This record gives sequence, C-alpha cells and structure tokens, in this order.
Amino acid sequence: MATLKVPSHVPSPSEDAEQLQKAFSGWGTNEQLIIDILAHRNAAQRNSIRKAYHEAYGEDLLKCLEKELTRDFERIVLLFTMDPAERDAYLAKEATKNSSIHLVLMEIACARSSYALLDVKKAYHARYKKSLEEDVAHHTSGDYRKLLVPLVSTFRYEGEESDMSLAKSEAKILHEKISDKQYGDEELIRILTTRSKAQLNATLSHYNNSFGSPINKDLKADPSDQFLKLLRSAIKCLTTSEKYFEKVLRQALGKSGTDEWALTRVVATRAEVDMVRIKEAYQRRNSVPLDKAIAGDTSGDYEKMLLALIGAGDV
Amino acid sequence: MATLKVPSHVPSPSEDAEQLQKAFSGWGTNEQLIIDILAHRNAAQRNSIRKAYHEAYGEDLLKCLEKELTRDFERIVLLFTMDPAERDAYLAKEATKNSSIHLVLMEIACARSSYALLDVKKAYHARYKKSLEEDVAHHTSGDYRKLLVPLVSTFRYEGEESDMSLAKSEAKILHEKISDKQYGDEELIRILTTRSKAQLNATLSHYNNSFGSPINKDLKADPSDQFLKLLRSAIKCLTTSEKYFEKVLRQALGKSGTDEWALTRVVATRAEVDMVRIKEAYQRRNSVPLDKAIAGDTSGDYEKMLLALIGAGDV
Repeated sequence: MATLKVPSHVPSPSEDAEQLQKAFSGWGTNEQLIIDILAHRNAAQRNSIRKAYHEAYGEDLLKCLEKELTRDFERIVLLFTMDPAERDAYLAKEATKNSSIHLVLMEIACARSSYALLDVKKAYHARYKKSLEEDVAHHTSGDYRKLLVPLVSTFRYEGEESDMSLAKSEAKILHEKISDKQYGDEELIRILTTRSKAQLNATLSHYNNSFGSPINKDLKADPSDQFLKLLRSAIKCLTTSEKYFEKVLRQALGKSGTDEWALTRVVATRAEVDMVRIKEAYQRRNSVPLDKAIAGDTSGDYEKMLLALIGAGDV
Repeated sequence: MATLKVPSHVPSPSEDAEQLQKAFSGWGTNEQLIIDILAHRNAAQRNSIRKAYHEAYGEDLLKCLEKELTRDFERIVLLFTMDPAERDAYLAKEATKNSSIHLVLMEIACARSSYALLDVKKAYHARYKKSLEEDVAHHTSGDYRKLLVPLVSTFRYEGEESDMSLAKSEAKILHEKISDKQYGDEELIRILTTRSKAQLNATLSHYNNSFGSPINKDLKADPSDQFLKLLRSAIKCLTTSEKYFEKVLRQALGKSGTDEWALTRVVATRAEVDMVRIKEAYQRRNSVPLDKAIAGDTSGDYEKMLLALIGAGDV
C-alpha cells in the first residue's frame, strides 16, 4: 500500500507543466509549488507531466529541476519524479560505480517483483547501452559477485505454490552450509537466488521449525562480516521487505546522525509501493511514528517533500 | 530468413481447424492434410487454429495430434505446432530432466534474442509453475552449472555498440584463462554469459587478431572434453548461429546413422527464423543441398514434413 496521496481532481499534465515552469521563473524558486505538484502525482502522471513539459518548453523537466534545486531536496525530487524503472536503473548504475553499495543492488533485485525488475533491465539497456547483469558482474568480485549476479539475473517465478518436500531438503542444505560457515557456497546461493519467494518462505519456515532458530540468527555468527550482513539483508528483503526497509530507516534516523542518502532512497522508492506497511513496522518497532522521526532529523523543503511522500498526518 | 512458406490465400482459423478435425476422422489419419495445413502457417496463425479448434471441438489440438500420430512424425508436428516460446519451454524442461542434454539449454539461451528468451521464461512460469533458472540451477552441477545458469539468466543487451578497449582487455583475459586451461574460470564465464553479442564479436575478433588463432581453435586442446565442447558450441551459437546449426544438422545426417532427435529440433525451431541461412551454410560446407541430405536419410510423412518446413524445392 502506497502513502502517495493524489488529489481527487488532478490538473492536466500541461497545466502541471506550466505551474512547474512558473515555479522555476522569476526571483528564486517556488519549492512549495514543486512539492505540491510532484509529491502528489503517481508514476504515470509524472511521466505525462515530463512529456508535456518537454513539448511546451523544449527542455527535460529533470534537467530543469537539477538546475533549480540543491542538495538533499534536489535528490529526493529528482529520484521521485523519475519513472520507477528508470529510477532503479539509475540507482543501480550509481551502485555499480561504487562497489561499497552492494546493498542497493540487492534491494533492487530482491524488493521488486519479477516484472518490475525486468522493467529496470529494459530501462538500463535503453539508458546505458549495456545490461544490468554485465555491469554488476564486471564491477563485483568474490562472494559478492557470486550472490549479486544471480540475484539481479533471475526472472523469479511469482506464483504462490510451494513444494514441501523441496522446502525440507533445501532447508537441510542451508543448515548444513551455514553450520560449516560456508556462506558463499554455491548450493546456498542457488537456493536464495533462484527459488520463488513463496518457496523460500516455506523453506525458511521449515528451517526455523527443524533447527530451532531463524536462519538470520544463525547468519549472525560474525556480526562484523559485511558479506554475512548482505546475505541477511537479502533474506529479509525477499521474505519481509517492510521489516527490511524499517531497519534501513531506523538506522538512517539513528543517534549517530542522519543518513540522508538512505532516507531519500527508501522514501523515493517505496512511497508508491508499500510505505504504509513500512510506517506500521516503524511505529511498532520504535514506538514513534515515522513522520515524527523524520521531522526531528530533517528540515526545510527536504523535510516537507519527505513528509508529503510518506503521507504525513495520515494514521 | 525463414523457409516457412505461407500460401497467399490462407483459410480462416476455423476452416483450418475443421479440416484438421476431418484429417483425424474416419479410417486412418490424413497425414498429408495435416502437413498441408500446419507446415504452412506461421506461429500466430497456428495459435489461432489451436484456439479455433478448442472452441469448436472442446479439445486441445496438440492432444489430438498426439493421439493420431506416432514417432518422429508426431514429434516434428507437435513441436512445430507449438508457439515458439512454449516449444522452447518444453524443450528446456525435457533438457533439465536429462542432464546429458546441456546442449539444448545452451541453444535456447544463446540462439534466441533477449526478448525471445524472456518469452520462454514467461511460458516456463505459466506451464511449469517454476522458473527456468531454478530448474537449470537445480539440475546441473560443476562447470556446467557455472556456465548454463548465467547463460539462461542474463537479459543481454542487444544493441550494436561495442567498446574497443573493453574488447582488448577482455580478449586478454580470455586468452590468459584458456592458456592456463582454466575453462571454468569465473572471469571467462562472466564475459561469455553477460556481454552483448556485438561486444563478444568485437572481443573475439580482437582475440583472433592478437593471439593468432580463433578462440574455438584454442578451446580444442582436449577434443574429448565434453565441457569444452559445450563452451565451443556456446561461442559459435552466440556469434554465428547458422554455422552452429549447420554443424548439428551435418552430424545428425552423418554416416553413423541419423539423429532424428537433433534433426527434428533444429528444423522445428529454425524454420521460422533463419533456416535460409542454415541451408546456405549446409550447401557450402557439404556440397549437397540440405533437402537432398534429409530426403536421403528420412522417409514417409516425417520426411514430407521436414521438407515442407525447410521449403524444399526453393533454391
């Protein structure tokens, strides 16, 4: 469930484009007008506005926003305005250039549906004249490559079926490999990267029931191991993505300073998807509404845009 | 270029369905009528006939063909009548059950366009309630798995661009690994399984120019090694698929008896794609037209169906 709020009467794309053009003109920029429009239009509507803007003014709306805005506010407006597939392709490209952000590639591979991931790959082809797979494979190595390449490559089955005997046999394989600390083992990676989410849920339930603890607990053997952390995140993202994103937000809004980069990414990518559930998970875990936590850690137009996207004021 | 010949006037799908139903009725089966219809309709037309047949008679045309026909003739008619993506899904499923036929998985991964391979994956989901990737990963092992899983998984970029400096650096990597006999090396496999066909062509030309022999010659170090054979076939399939299929046909029609299984597969899968080029390659290599070779090795309705599909009588 999305937190994005679209008004019951939406102006035409060319009216919105005209308003945005006005927001850029004259003395200073009218940030509030930009928020009022772009934070309250769905992906299809934003695409139509970009098209109308280009037709009317001969310029790319994203380029104009880039010129007019700065810093965190610029980034959240730009990311959110992009089409979701284009946005993921862009985030993935950034991630391949900076191999420390394996997490973003994992998120795009695990928290999108098979068809949404396919759209990301098509957008990647169109924009970068390469495949997502070749860039990920080229820019990663070792266990990270072994995990991330199949994660971004597989077109997972999305049906609800699960095979209990398979769940049993594969839970056993996972338990053996984890007990032997073979975290980069090819069977372990095969199971996590190719099985459907329904099948993985069945396998991991079986794991918990048969071996007495959840897989992610067993994967905490060495809390400082970054690959193990990625593996746990991937499992969480595949099985209970709202809890994964709750944790990213919790850490981003943590005591050791705000991580605007993560906050922006999660809000921009989930506002139209499952932010309602993420907010619920956040409230449950932290006993504070997400709105309040964000308002406490951010300010100005950036704060306003974030709060608009997460539907602040809703219960 | 396809060899499939569709008449200038095509009856309506329901007329075709009615004729087929007649071919199944009465004393014996009218095989010639089946050939006259099904070997001369394109994939969209065959799909419409199946739909019309189901509407008129409440039965699946494929099931009826299965009941009426036998042996090699049955197999070629069934395979050809299927939708191309459904047929590939079916062939791939057969291949995962019989791990000796890695070749078929490789063919489907390498000789189809990215979008055709995607359609195969969608057909696989629909028919088998699983992903192609998970079945391939589950049913293969060792170097075969290392090669085949990314081959079937990657959504390759299909543009014509190639990057010469990348071609140079990756030709060098390939040469080093092959010189060291590291045929299952992950860098070698990464390059072959993720780069676009245009990029691979550039890399392999560079290989040939810089190191004095084509890559497939260097991969012949041990002619009895089955994995090396698969690697050479994949490279051929990715870069000059008509030569690859010419060789499969040459071996299928070879002196040591006919391999109907391979002959049927190649004719059924290529008649609508590039059989014109395959026939040209066959004539060049064997100084005998493919029609003549097939007529010499096969007989009866099976022969008639094969010859109809490869457009026998055309030059």
